[in-house]
Amino acid sequence: METEVKIPIEVSAKHIHLTQDDVDTLFGKGYQLTNKKELSQPGYFVTNEKVEVIGSKGSANFSILIPLRSQTQVEVAITDAIKLGLDVCVRDSGNLAGSAPCKLKGPAGEIDLKEGVIVARRHIHLNDDYASQLNVKDKEFIKVKVEGERGLTFENVLVRVDPSFSNSMHIDTDEGNAVNINNKTQTFGKKVL
Amino acid sequence: METEVKIPIEVSAKHIHLTQDDVDTLFGKGYQLTNKKELSQPGYFVTNEKVEVIGSKGSANFSILIPLRSQTQVEVAITDAIKLGLDVCVRDSGNLAGSAPCKLKGPAGEIDLKEGVIVARRHIHLNDDYASQLNVKDKEFIKVKVEGERGLTFENVLVRVDPSFSNSMHIDTDEGNAVNINNKTQTFGKKVL
Repeated sequence: METEVKIPIEVSAKHIHLTQDDVDTLFGKGYQLTNKKELSQPGYFVTNEKVEVIGSKGSANFSILIPLRSQTQVEVAITDAIKLGLDVCVRDSGNLAGSAPCKLKGPAGEIDLKEGVIVARRHIHLNDDYASQLNVKDKEFIKVKVEGERGLTFENVLVRVDPSFSNSMHIDTDEGNAVNINNKTQTFGKKVL
Repeated sequence: METEVKIPIEVSAKHIHLTQDDVDTLFGKGYQLTNKKELSQPGYFVTNEKVEVIGSKGSANFSILIPLRSQTQVEVAITDAIKLGLDVCVRDSGNLAGSAPCKLKGPAGEIDLKEGVIVARRHIHLNDDYASQLNVKDKEFIKVKVEGERGLTFENVLVRVDPSFSNSMHIDTDEGNAVNINNKTQTFGKKVL
């Protein structure tokens, strides 16, 4: 029998990852984004600056996550996508070919993003030790049960293992609200068969 | 072994049930609400009229469901509640004592609703035959699994059995988006142990 290992869960609100080129276009050449708050993954920050994301039905200001990336990626929950008019699909982070377009607006300029808007697939960051305790491997899919009045078992949760990772399962705001948890409730899930 | 019986799932968007008195206040004494669209439960309709629901952070227009009720009830998803600034809890329909307040506004008047705003507990309407096929009883809680890329098992699903019911599981928009289904996708769940 496997030991029961608790998996900390974090809820990701809508946000954007930018390239250096897109920072230059949106905020001005050479602009340095400023850190507002450290996130659980080492080296990750939310910036004080925001970007306006514009869909066919509306727009909203999105938090920017750093480090910068090689391709700009906008992450939304389906509720956000419906409200903004974004034709999204569920994708793994970084798998953006053929994903939804949108417009981006910053204080210095606008971008017509051809692709990059996704609903992120639910996933778990694990370091090697914790992955070993949970008896899971990188790229494996597992089921995670969350207890409670609105309890849910999340099927098809992608496991990502890296020595640098802080142990945390990431779900979006729709998934968080469906199970009635948020980042203040400090909720844990458990792997189930 | 139990036979596998499919449970049709419907997603309920935010809406309101009104009393006759509150219809009179919001729309004018003796006003008759007009049917826009029939719903799956026999005798249930959405009306052409809407009511503005006002919380501490914002407001939105809510669809009205008839038949009328003995107490006005506002149903929201947690995402709606956060956006509007409504301090909600998860409740069974009709169990409104101590639930959240809000303001209501119609063309003829306003109401300061002292209680009645809830997040509805996920539940299933079943007629007697179907309940028998599923081997479940009124007021029982079951687990319902929905397959798919964003598959989920909903725990703690309240069963309600009545000869008049059309067979349907009801979840809110957060729960629907978490599993990536809507009323166009015609999704089914199955009872699991």
